[in-house]
Amino acid sequence: MADAPGADAATARGDAARPTVAVIGTGLIGASIAAAMRAHDPAARIIGVGAAEHTRIALERGWIDAAGATIADAVCQARHVVLAVPGRALASVLGECAPVLAADAVITDCTSTKRAPIDAARLALGPRFDRFVPGHPIAGSEHSGPQAARADLFEGAITILCPQPQTADDALAAIEAWWRSLGARTTRMDADDHDRLFAEVSHWPHAVAFALAAAIAEAPWARDAAHYAGAGLRDTTRIAASSPDMWADILLENRDAVLACAARTQAGIERLVQAIRDGDRDALRERFEAGSRWRRSVRPPGG
Amino acid sequence: MADAPGADAATARGDAARPTVAVIGTGLIGASIAAAMRAHDPAARIIGVGAAEHTRIALERGWIDAAGATIADAVCQARHVVLAVPGRALASVLGECAPVLAADAVITDCTSTKRAPIDAARLALGPRFDRFVPGHPIAGSEHSGPQAARADLFEGAITILCPQPQTADDALAAIEAWWRSLGARTTRMDADDHDRLFAEVSHWPHAVAFALAAAIAEAPWARDAAHYAGAGLRDTTRIAASSPDMWADILLENRDAVLACAARTQAGIERLVQAIRDGDRDALRERFEAGSRWRRSVRPPGG
Repeated sequence: MADAPGADAATARGDAARPTVAVIGTGLIGASIAAAMRAHDPAARIIGVGAAEHTRIALERGWIDAAGATIADAVCQARHVVLAVPGRALASVLGECAPVLAADAVITDCTSTKRAPIDAARLALGPRFDRFVPGHPIAGSEHSGPQAARADLFEGAITILCPQPQTADDALAAIEAWWRSLGARTTRMDADDHDRLFAEVSHWPHAVAFALAAAIAEAPWARDAAHYAGAGLRDTTRIAASSPDMWADILLENRDAVLACAARTQAGIERLVQAIRDGDRDALRERFEAGSRWRRSVRPPGG
Repeated sequence: MADAPGADAATARGDAARPTVAVIGTGLIGASIAAAMRAHDPAARIIGVGAAEHTRIALERGWIDAAGATIADAVCQARHVVLAVPGRALASVLGECAPVLAADAVITDCTSTKRAPIDAARLALGPRFDRFVPGHPIAGSEHSGPQAARADLFEGAITILCPQPQTADDALAAIEAWWRSLGARTTRMDADDHDRLFAEVSHWPHAVAFALAAAIAEAPWARDAAHYAGAGLRDTTRIAASSPDMWADILLENRDAVLACAARTQAGIERLVQAIRDGDRDALRERFEAGSRWRRSVRPPGG
C-alpha cells in the first residue's frame, strides 16, 4: 500500500536534471504506468512508492529508478505526481502530498469514481487544487499487483479526465499529453456524468458478476459447476475474480448511481423470471432481444 | 433450419462404400462438427441438411459432400446421424428420422438440455430409442451460423452424454469414440443432474447477461455505455449477443432448474443492494469474497 513503504525501500537522489515523476501506488495500475513510461519516455526518472514487495518487483523489472521512502519524499522531488492508490487511501495520500507539492507540479489520480476524489483533493490541496487533474484510465484486469502489470495496458484505452472550473489549463494539457504518450486516448467528462456512466458500465456489472458467482458457490453442485463452466460462464464471471476489497470500496463510494442501476437490473430480472414462470416465450424473447441489440452495439476492444 | 432445406439443395448418391454421416442442422454446431470430421476423418462422407444458405457455405468450404434434399433422404443413407438442431425443432426432426433410420445406425443430439430431448426421442423412436445417445458438447459462441464454425471448436471441450437404461452399449461406445475423434473429452451424467448443472453454469447465466445488457439499454446513457464499455463489461455481457430465440427456448425447456438458480441469484443481489444501501462494507466484502473464491476455482479453458 502507498502509505506503507517497505523497510528496505531505497531512495535515489541526485540525477535532478531528469524530469522526475512520482508514482504513488505500485499495484497493477501504478506499475503499468511506470512500465509504459519507461517504454515511451526513457529519459524520465520514475520514483515509485508502494508496498516493499511491489516496489521490489518494479525495481527489478527496471520500471522505476528508485523506491521512495515516503510519499512526501517522492512527491517533493517530482513535477508530475500520479496517484495510483485505491479510492479508500486517496484522501490520506493527498494529505501527505499537499505540503510538499511543488508550485508548478501537476497531480492526477486513477480511481474509478470521480466525485469522491475531487472532493478529497479540494479539501487536501486547498489553493493547490488547480494543479489536480481528476483522471480515470479505462484499463485494468481481474488480476492485481505489479506481477500483472503490462507496459501496453493503456494502448488504445480511453482515459477520462474530469477537469474542474479551477483546474489550470496547463495542468490539464500536461496530463492529456502524458496519457497520450502512454498510448491512451483522452476525453473530458463531467464528474457526475462519469460516475453515473461508470456505475452502469463497470461498478454495478462487477457486483452482478460477484453475485452470480456467489449464487453458484451456494449451489450443491458448486464444485461441478467450476469444472463444467464453459467459455460463456467463464467470461460472464471473469471479473468476479477481482479484488473484493477494492470493489466493495468503489461500490460504496458511488452508492447512489449504483443503486439506480441495481433497481433497473432487479426489475429486469424479475420480468425475466415472470416470463419463464409463465412460459411466455414472446416476453422472454423480446427482453433478450433488447439486451442482445445493445450488446451488439458495444465498441470492440480498441475500436 | 433443418426442416427447410433450400430449393437448390443437391443430393449426392452413390459413393455408398464410404461411411456416411448425416448432420442435420448446419448452424454453428452442425457446421463445426462437419468441419471437424472433415479434418479428422477424411474418408467419411458427410451429408448436411439445413437452410440453403447454410449448406451452400458448408459445401463451398468442403465440410460436407452433399446437401440432403430432406432429412429422410440424408438419414436413410447414414449409419451415424447427428442432430444439431435447436431444441424446439428436435421432436419434429426425430419424427422425420424415425421411419428411415437404419437398424444399426446410431443417432445423437447436441442440445443444451437433456430431459426434453430424451422424452422426445423415446416418443419418436419407439423401439429404436436404444440407438439414441443423448449428448451435449460444451462448446459454442455468441455467434451463430456456419460462418462462425470452426474445425477446432471441440478441441479440449467436454461432451456430456446421458445414456438411458435402454441405450445400447455399442451405440454409446460409438458416439463416445466419435466425439473423442473430434478432439473432445466425453463424460457420462444423469440427465436430470445435467439439466440442474447446466441451468446453473449456462442457462441462467445467459439470462443474467441478457438482463444486465437490457437494463443498460434502458439507461439514458445507453449509447455512451456502449462506447465506454471496458473489457469487464464486454466479457460480462458477451453472451448477451447470443440468439434470443435459441436461449428463450432453452430457458423454457429447463424451466424448473432455471427458476431455482434465479431465486438464489435474486436473493444474493438483494443482499448486495441492502449492504450497499446500508454502507455495510463487511457484508459487501464477504459476499464478494464468496463469489471471488468460487470464480478462482473455475477450470481454465481446456484445463
